[in-house]
Amino acid sequence: MSIRVTVWGENVHEQKNKVVAGIYPDTMHGTIAAALNRESGITASTVTLQDVEHGLTPERLAETDVLIWWGHAAHGDVSDAVAERVAEAVWSGMGIIFLHSAHFSKPFKRLMGTPCNLSWREAGERERLWVTARQHPIARGLPDHFELEHEEMYGEPFGIPEPLETVFISWFAGGEVFRSGLTWRRGAGNVFYFRPGHETYPTYHDTNVQRVIANGVRWAFNPEARLADPTTAPNRPVASALEPIEERGPRLHHDGEEGYR
Amino acid sequence: MSIRVTVWGENVHEQKNKVVAGIYPDTMHGTIAAALNRESGITASTVTLQDVEHGLTPERLAETDVLIWWGHAAHGDVSDAVAERVAEAVWSGMGIIFLHSAHFSKPFKRLMGTPCNLSWREAGERERLWVTARQHPIARGLPDHFELEHEEMYGEPFGIPEPLETVFISWFAGGEVFRSGLTWRRGAGNVFYFRPGHETYPTYHDTNVQRVIANGVRWAFNPEARLADPTTAPNRPVASALEPIEERGPRLHHDGEEGYR
Amino acid sequence: MSIRVTVWGENVHEQKNKVVAGIYPDTMHGTIAAALNRESGITASTVTLQDVEHGLTPERLAETDVLIWWGHAAHGDVSDAVAERVAEAVWSGMGIIFLHSAHFSKPFKRLMGTPCNLSWREAGERERLWVTARQHPIARGLPDHFELEHEEMYGEPFGIPEPLETVFISWFAGGEVFRSGLTWRRGAGNVFYFRPGHETYPTYHDTNVQRVIANGVRWAFNPEARLADPTTAPNRPVASALEPIEERGPRLHHDGEEGYR
Amino acid sequence: MSIRVTVWGENVHEQKNKVVAGIYPDTMHGTIAAALNRESGITASTVTLQDVEHGLTPERLAETDVLIWWGHAAHGDVSDAVAERVAEAVWSGMGIIFLHSAHFSKPFKRLMGTPCNLSWREAGERERLWVTARQHPIARGLPDHFELEHEEMYGEPFGIPEPLETVFISWFAGGEVFRSGLTWRRGAGNVFYFRPGHETYPTYHDTNVQRVIANGVRWAFNPEARLADPTTAPNRPVASALEPIEERGPRLHHDGEEGYR
Repeated sequence: MSIRVTVWGENVHEQKNKVVAGIYPDTMHGTIAAALNRESGITASTVTLQDVEHGLTPERLAETDVLIWWGHAAHGDVSDAVAERVAEAVWSGMGIIFLHSAHFSKPFKRLMGTPCNLSWREAGERERLWVTARQHPIARGLPDHFELEHEEMYGEPFGIPEPLETVFISWFAGGEVFRSGLTWRRGAGNVFYFRPGHETYPTYHDTNVQRVIANGVRWAFNPEARLADPTTAPNRPVASALEPIEERGPRLHHDGEEGYR
Repeated sequence: MSIRVTVWGENVHEQKNKVVAGIYPDTMHGTIAAALNRESGITASTVTLQDVEHGLTPERLAETDVLIWWGHAAHGDVSDAVAERVAEAVWSGMGIIFLHSAHFSKPFKRLMGTPCNLSWREAGERERLWVTARQHPIARGLPDHFELEHEEMYGEPFGIPEPLETVFISWFAGGEVFRSGLTWRRGAGNVFYFRPGHETYPTYHDTNVQRVIANGVRWAFNPEARLADPTTAPNRPVASALEPIEERGPRLHHDGEEGYR
Repeated sequence: MSIRVTVWGENVHEQKNKVVAGIYPDTMHGTIAAALNRESGITASTVTLQDVEHGLTPERLAETDVLIWWGHAAHGDVSDAVAERVAEAVWSGMGIIFLHSAHFSKPFKRLMGTPCNLSWREAGERERLWVTARQHPIARGLPDHFELEHEEMYGEPFGIPEPLETVFISWFAGGEVFRSGLTWRRGAGNVFYFRPGHETYPTYHDTNVQRVIANGVRWAFNPEARLADPTTAPNRPVASALEPIEERGPRLHHDGEEGYR
Repeated sequence: MSIRVTVWGENVHEQKNKVVAGIYPDTMHGTIAAALNRESGITASTVTLQDVEHGLTPERLAETDVLIWWGHAAHGDVSDAVAERVAEAVWSGMGIIFLHSAHFSKPFKRLMGTPCNLSWREAGERERLWVTARQHPIARGLPDHFELEHEEMYGEPFGIPEPLETVFISWFAGGEVFRSGLTWRRGAGNVFYFRPGHETYPTYHDTNVQRVIANGVRWAFNPEARLADPTTAPNRPVASALEPIEERGPRLHHDGEEGYR
């Protein structure tokens, strides 16, 4: 059985900017998916912002084990309904990986509950990622650090909730640091944020970066059945209580009714 | 100096339901605020859903050190703009305490990034809260457990992110358990969820419950200056980099420009 | 490839107490191992306190992917050297599962850094375990709760550090609650504590309990190579610094020397 | 009321090394204590390794609200009994701050349950500390980053458990990063690790460093009464169960007896 990955690409820079199109003639999402398809046990395909419902219909999400998200220039063009649908899919058990500027995407902000802001500089400077969690599945097969000669800088403070685990921290030539590999769990879904990937540099052609993304897919994959309704709040009537109790005192609700939401 | 608390009350049940009005002739929010005003170093007042902008204007939030939220029947009547304003105030450093059915309020769901669902039963059954974090500031002055003879049951799983700390866990006569005192940090703001407080029982007259809420206020209070803009994502131009670097490679952005959001 | 499990049994009650011997004619550790050997992809064997070096030689630990620990009456008879060896194996990547009264074992206390204390009562009362982390790998295949009709009670507060994740919470008929399924990471090793398993009740014959232990084994298994020395603190001389720097100011140490420990 | 701080100094380098003695004519611990004594609401004094019981008698610990620990060359000379006594004091509610090379001290390793290792280089290079938790009490009054022109490098991976909160991350000129301000809770005690402070540089004369340590003292202070016995594991006999239960099945223990440890 193969892990089914959908790579969501904003697909704006590739169409409008010659530099980006030159680095990624097969688009960024296409490059990421192609690298994943060279891995055993992973099958990746792509959808984009421009597709109907941004390519993220309920059917598509139901068939996606892990969603990868890259967006930058058009966060605001993603419909609120699709962003909420993605969040619900995560709660039901879909894994999700947010790349680079997806820190400001609607689904990431929705899942974090924080501003997700940071400082930044686009100078093609050297980034060095240090593994902070030795032998973590997301760091599988990596050296203790690796470098990207040209990257955009993201600097702390990063406006996120404390993560479950910090897997990578980046050093930048200009003097900043950044928590660049972080995990959370939201409902039944595993969430991984990975920092590198500015569109004007060839980051997604880098073998270490490709390794991290493939590792992240395997880590984020939850083989359990997807929850049918991850938001349900069931009433448990007195008559079916696990221990014998008698109803006492006044009440507002009827047995088995829907609660207020 | 006193900690300025605003107690936000939905104020629906007290107006519509004779049982609730009988238990809380001064309303639930009024009862909570009155108990806090008996504490040294705390000054509490109230606002309600029915007030203009639900009483939560930017000015009011700027003067609120800790906001307490009780809502149940009318979560949907809270405007999205006010919910977002509350979240931003938390990120900027305002403390917030969510009580009981506020688990489904817009601000709580916004700050958690999860469904915040649970199971429930309204049978007036016994709840026993156990302190799980000994000598935690929120458990100050409490015995190792305390009971509420009549409460609504909330049962696990509780659809929240892993908390920073688990302070209380509840036992219910009907056979369920629930993490009933939980902390998180969101931006510069401290968040505390406290389970008890169903409107048809006299929970907010209970001295242990009052003690927890007052402790929670002191814990949630962040004496630091409020962040002017907790969502800012500043560009740091090459010319002002902390270490001398030279710009290299192509770029999309101009120095000092606003990034995409 | 199979996950190699070693079940460590204290093996005292089974030899001295007729009730325990009657419930577990194949010993407790033998029963646990037999259940694991019925799982695909897991190979389990046993060692005991009475074996040379308690059965936990360096060679044995090197060939153990996941160690399961059950002890109660003879925690003090475990040698400090073996306890430390177990901790180092965990740091290097061996998974470990502590069962029931192993909360007071030397390796658990060593790995937690806390007292690991709790309250307790031996009355054969009903325990009900609630899943708090839906679709977590350790809860795979379980209902939302399950019961053990006769168990020893363990009550909060449980003297442990905040866990990475809370997977189960127990309800007890006598009125207590307990966090009964908890995870941590220590170095490269995954740690799982699971509460049930008092020696005078048939807990390890229960299929749900067996399911949790098998799930725990798969969760705790780290397929990465074991770290050769998980405690090393390497000096990185100036000459091999990743960025060009010059030595400045006074120093105490010589290049490449061992630091103080 | 004043927070009573005890600064524990190893006091070896100051006596043996002219460079260190020149930078710290009043010793390192003396310098740290003097800075704290300039703060309102803090009273600091010092003890050293060479004192009877290293200055850390039960009486002294009982009168210490927050202990600060600096050690490097003589970790092994600290008696195991005193290290365990310090851990117990923390569990009972004493705050503790570990500075720099105290990452390898016995009490820190005991409280963490991990190797606490790292990589290092003594080159007097520039360290820049970034605040990662905005408006955190430990970062009170600090700019968003500050620099130490000459420091020893500590590099990731840092062999610690995931912290409660990451407050600072350091950038080093030679290319490494390090989580340099971290918090944990152990029992009723708050634990703070702060990285800077190599003995051959004037770090503890730096006003930002002094600010962090004073903030850390206020954060670590737990005003609650110290727990008399933080390791107790009380038996709760059936007769005094909170809910009426009857004893069922066989048992090993007598009512009220001490459990096995």
